Amino acid sequence: MAKFQKHVFVCINEREPGNPKGCCAAKGSREIADALKQKLHERGLKRIVRANKAMCLDQCALGPTIVVYPEGTWYGHVTLADIDEIIEKHIVGGEPVVRLVIPPEKLTGIDPAKAPSRNG
Amino acid sequence: MAKFQKHVFVCINEREPGNPKGCCAAKGSREIADALKQKLHERGLKRIVRANKAMCLDQCALGPTIVVYPEGTWYGHVTLADIDEIIEKHIVGGEPVVRLVIPPEKLTGIDPAKAPSRNG
Repeated sequence: MAKFQKHVFVCINEREPGNPKGCCAAKGSREIADALKQKLHERGLKRIVRANKAMCLDQCALGPTIVVYPEGTWYGHVTLADIDEIIEKHIVGGEPVVRLVIPPEKLTGIDPAKAPSRNG
Repeated sequence: MAKFQKHVFVCINEREPGNPKGCCAAKGSREIADALKQKLHERGLKRIVRANKAMCLDQCALGPTIVVYPEGTWYGHVTLADIDEIIEKHIVGGEPVVRLVIPPEKLTGIDPAKAPSRNG
């Protein structure tokens, strides 16, 4: 046994209707997570690639969001129709699906160059 | 903005009582996730390190489980008392907390050398 070769997290966070942040669940992310898992299983990738539901990934306005580790590729506005391409091109082929990648400047993390010291 | 420097997933999956697999939630993982988030915020690491609740991380017997990306360090049998050490030594210091690391041979993924081809 060993680590999963890829660990794919799909945000399934749900907020109350009317919350200005919105949420991935309201945009169909649970169905996306289920489809991703099912398709990975069908391809025999179940124990090699883990499809994981996650609570809020903190990119609410860009949802449904997915992040693929260990490479840390973030995808936004993912739909059910994108799953096959993500599996084929990225999970199997090792190349990101560029049209879905969230540009770093749109993510909610802090640029390391501007971040306060973690030892401070 | 940029990617989180570290993305920490805490399994909060809950199974029905009596399920032989057990679950992380029954072993206090929600409290662990909340404490991790709170402590990271207190240290000003909120936008640099993301504490994320996750559904089943598939290491049920070893729970509560945590995985830290991008390095892919897996921790098992984590307790509330371990959170400060994980933050101090690993998140801030960059070194794993060895006594809590799940050995690769105990993880449920497949050894890449033994895995079927992903292109097959």
